[in-house]
Amino acid sequence: MNTEILTRDFSAIQSEKPLIHNITNHVVMNITANTLLALGASPVMAHAKEEAADMTRISSALVLNIGTLSPHWVEAMYLSLEAANNTGIPVVLDPVGAGATSYRTETAHDLLKNGAVNILRGNASEILALTPAGGTTKGVDSTDEADRAFDAIRDLAGKYQITVSVSGKTDHIISKDHHIKVHNGSSQMAKITGMGCTASAFTGAFSAVNPQYPQAAAHAMAVLGIAGEIAEMDSKGPGSFQINLLDSLASLDNEAILRLAQIEEENH
Amino acid sequence: MNTEILTRDFSAIQSEKPLIHNITNHVVMNITANTLLALGASPVMAHAKEEAADMTRISSALVLNIGTLSPHWVEAMYLSLEAANNTGIPVVLDPVGAGATSYRTETAHDLLKNGAVNILRGNASEILALTPAGGTTKGVDSTDEADRAFDAIRDLAGKYQITVSVSGKTDHIISKDHHIKVHNGSSQMAKITGMGCTASAFTGAFSAVNPQYPQAAAHAMAVLGIAGEIAEMDSKGPGSFQINLLDSLASLDNEAILRLAQIEEENH
Amino acid sequence: MNTEILTRDFSAIQSEKPLIHNITNHVVMNITANTLLALGASPVMAHAKEEAADMTRISSALVLNIGTLSPHWVEAMYLSLEAANNTGIPVVLDPVGAGATSYRTETAHDLLKNGAVNILRGNASEILALTPAGGTTKGVDSTDEADRAFDAIRDLAGKYQITVSVSGKTDHIISKDHHIKVHNGSSQMAKITGMGCTASAFTGAFSAVNPQYPQAAAHAMAVLGIAGEIAEMDSKGPGSFQINLLDSLASLDNEAILRLAQIEEENH
Repeated sequence: MNTEILTRDFSAIQSEKPLIHNITNHVVMNITANTLLALGASPVMAHAKEEAADMTRISSALVLNIGTLSPHWVEAMYLSLEAANNTGIPVVLDPVGAGATSYRTETAHDLLKNGAVNILRGNASEILALTPAGGTTKGVDSTDEADRAFDAIRDLAGKYQITVSVSGKTDHIISKDHHIKVHNGSSQMAKITGMGCTASAFTGAFSAVNPQYPQAAAHAMAVLGIAGEIAEMDSKGPGSFQINLLDSLASLDNEAILRLAQIEEENH
Repeated sequence: MNTEILTRDFSAIQSEKPLIHNITNHVVMNITANTLLALGASPVMAHAKEEAADMTRISSALVLNIGTLSPHWVEAMYLSLEAANNTGIPVVLDPVGAGATSYRTETAHDLLKNGAVNILRGNASEILALTPAGGTTKGVDSTDEADRAFDAIRDLAGKYQITVSVSGKTDHIISKDHHIKVHNGSSQMAKITGMGCTASAFTGAFSAVNPQYPQAAAHAMAVLGIAGEIAEMDSKGPGSFQINLLDSLASLDNEAILRLAQIEEENH
Repeated sequence: MNTEILTRDFSAIQSEKPLIHNITNHVVMNITANTLLALGASPVMAHAKEEAADMTRISSALVLNIGTLSPHWVEAMYLSLEAANNTGIPVVLDPVGAGATSYRTETAHDLLKNGAVNILRGNASEILALTPAGGTTKGVDSTDEADRAFDAIRDLAGKYQITVSVSGKTDHIISKDHHIKVHNGSSQMAKITGMGCTASAFTGAFSAVNPQYPQAAAHAMAVLGIAGEIAEMDSKGPGSFQINLLDSLASLDNEAILRLAQIEEENH
C-alpha cells in the first residue's frame, strides 16, 4: 500500500472540493450530502431530466444509485451518464437492491451496457446478482464458493471494463488487473441506513481526484472505514454512531489516516 | 397483559429480521429505515409501479403511508396491496394528514375499500377524519365526546374488518372485539417528525411475527414507547432525543420491556 | 433594532404554531420539518397537484424551494402560489442552485413573474444569478463589486416588489426601502446540508406572524443564527452541531434572544 497517494487524494478532496452529482435514493439523500460535506466535497442532487445533464456537466463525478428508482429518474440517469461520458468525468454505479426485483437488476445491467460506468460499488449480494453466478451463488461460506464468486466478479469487471468495489467486513476492489483489499470499517456501519450509499458517493469523490479507479475506490472505502472505526469508540448505538461518524469525518487528518489505513494489494 | 407474548414477539423480530416494505413519505424515510434497523427488522422502500409488487412479494409486511402521496405512488400502493393480499402478509395503513385535504381522506378511504388492510394506525384526528363523526368531532375534551369517538372508531373497525391503532398520550388499539390501551411513551415523541410513521412501521414489523393484529399493534406501540421513555432520560431536546431513541432501541432487551411495559386490555 | 418586536414574533410562533406549507427538496425535508417543530411552528409537506393548493389554503405561510425540482413539483408550486395569493398568506421562495442550471434559474424567474412572492431568500450566488449582474459578478471581493451587487439586488427587490434576504457571514435583508443586516450565525452552519433551506422555512414562519416582511426575514435569520451560535459551543463537528441545533432551538428563550441578537438597520 502506498499511503502517500491515499493522503494526497484525501487532501485533494479538501482543497478542490469537487462537486459530486448524485442521482440517488430518497432514503439516504440527507446523510449522503452530509457525509460528502464532512469529507470536504461538494454534494449536489438533481434528478429532473430538464437539468440532470446540465448538472453533470459542471460536476467532477457522477454517482448513480438505484435505491428508490422510478422511470423518470432512470431517464435522468441516462442523460447524466451520457453527459459524464462526453465530459470525461468518472461515473460510479451503486446497484442498490439488485437481485431483489428484476426491475433493479435489469436497470443496473442496462446502465452498465449503455454507457461507460467506471466503478460499480455494492455489497456482495448486489454484485453477484449482476453476474451469471447470481442465481446460484448463495454466499461465500466455503473457500470454493469464495473463489467462484471472485472469478465471477472479475469476469464482470472484464466484461464491462470496470472496477468493481464489493463492500463487506473486508472490502474487495476488483478489476481485470487489480485486487485490492481494504480491512477498515466498523460493524456499526451495517446498523444504520445509507453507509453503502455513502461509500459510493465517496468513491465518486475519490475518483474525481484520482483517475486510477481501483486505487480511488480503495481509498474511499479506507477513509470511510477509518472514520467509522473512530466513530464507534464513543458510540452507544446506531444513533450516536451516525453523529460521531460525521464528527470524525470532519476532523479526520492525514496522521490518523496513515496510522489506521489497512489496504492490501494482491497481484493476480 | 401477557408480557411473555410481548417479549416473544420482540425476540422474533430480532431473530427473523422480517423484511418490511414501506411505501412512505419523503420526510420520514430515513428515520423510518433507521428505527426499523435499530429494532432488528429489515426495512426496504420501493415505490415504482415497475417493482413495488415484486418487492412486496418478498416482504413479510407492507406499510402504506400517505404522508407525501402523489398519483404514481398511490398506484404503487394498490399494486403492493394486491400483492400483499395474494401473498397473505399483513398490511398497515397510516393515513397521515387525513382530514387535512380531501385527496388524503379519499385516498385513505379508497385503500381501505379496495383491498384488505389489516391495521389502520394514526392519531385521533386522522382516524376520526375517516369516520362519519369526522366532520363534527373536534376533539375528546369531554367524556361524552370520548365515548362518541370510541363508538365511531369501533364502527370503523367493524366496517372494514380491521384493527385501528390510535396513538396519543394513551394509545388505543380497537377492533370489533378488542380494546387495548398502551400507556408507554414520551412527550418528546411529538416534538420530532416521523414518530407516528415509525409507529406504523413497527406495527408492520410486529404484525409480521404475530398474526393476532390487535396484540401486534399494541406491542409495537409499547416497544416504541418504552424506547422513547428511556431515550428521554438523557435528552436535552428533540435533537438528542432522536439520537437517544435509536441508541435505546438498539440496546433494548426483554428485561427492560418486562419492567416498563404498560399494556391494559379491556373487555367490551 | 427593536428587540421587543423580535421576541414578540418568536413568542407568537410558539403560541400560534402556524402551519407552514413547504414544497421543498428531498435532501432537506426531514431537517426542515424538525427545525420548524423545534422553533414551535407546524410543518407540512405536500407536493401533489391534487392537494397542494388545498394544503396551502389551510396554512399560514407557503415556502417554495427549488432544490430538487421537477415539472410535477413546479406545477404544484404554481397551484400553491395562486392559492397563497388568493388567501393572502406570505410566500417565500428559495432559489436553491439558481445559476447552476438554466432550468433552476428560469423556474425561479418564472415563479417570481407569475405570482406574488413576498420574500426571496438565498445565498449571494443564487440571488445574483437572478439579477442582470448574474453573469458577470463573480463575487464581492472588492468594495466596488459589493456596491454593484447591492444595487443589483435592490433593483431585483424593486422589480418584483419583494424583500430579498441574502444569507452569508452577514445576512443582508434588502427591499426597496430597507437594508437590515444580521450578524448572527455560526460557521458550522455551512458545513451541514439544509441550513439555507431551514432559513427559508423560518422566514416563512416569521412572516406568518409579522406582515412587515423585511423585519420578519431579519428575525428568522437572527433566531436561527442565535441557535447556531449556542449549538456550536458544545459541538465536536457537523454531526453533533446538527443535534445541538435542534436542542438549542427547542430551549431558546426571550432572554437568550435579547442577549445575543445582532440586527442592524440601515437607512437608504
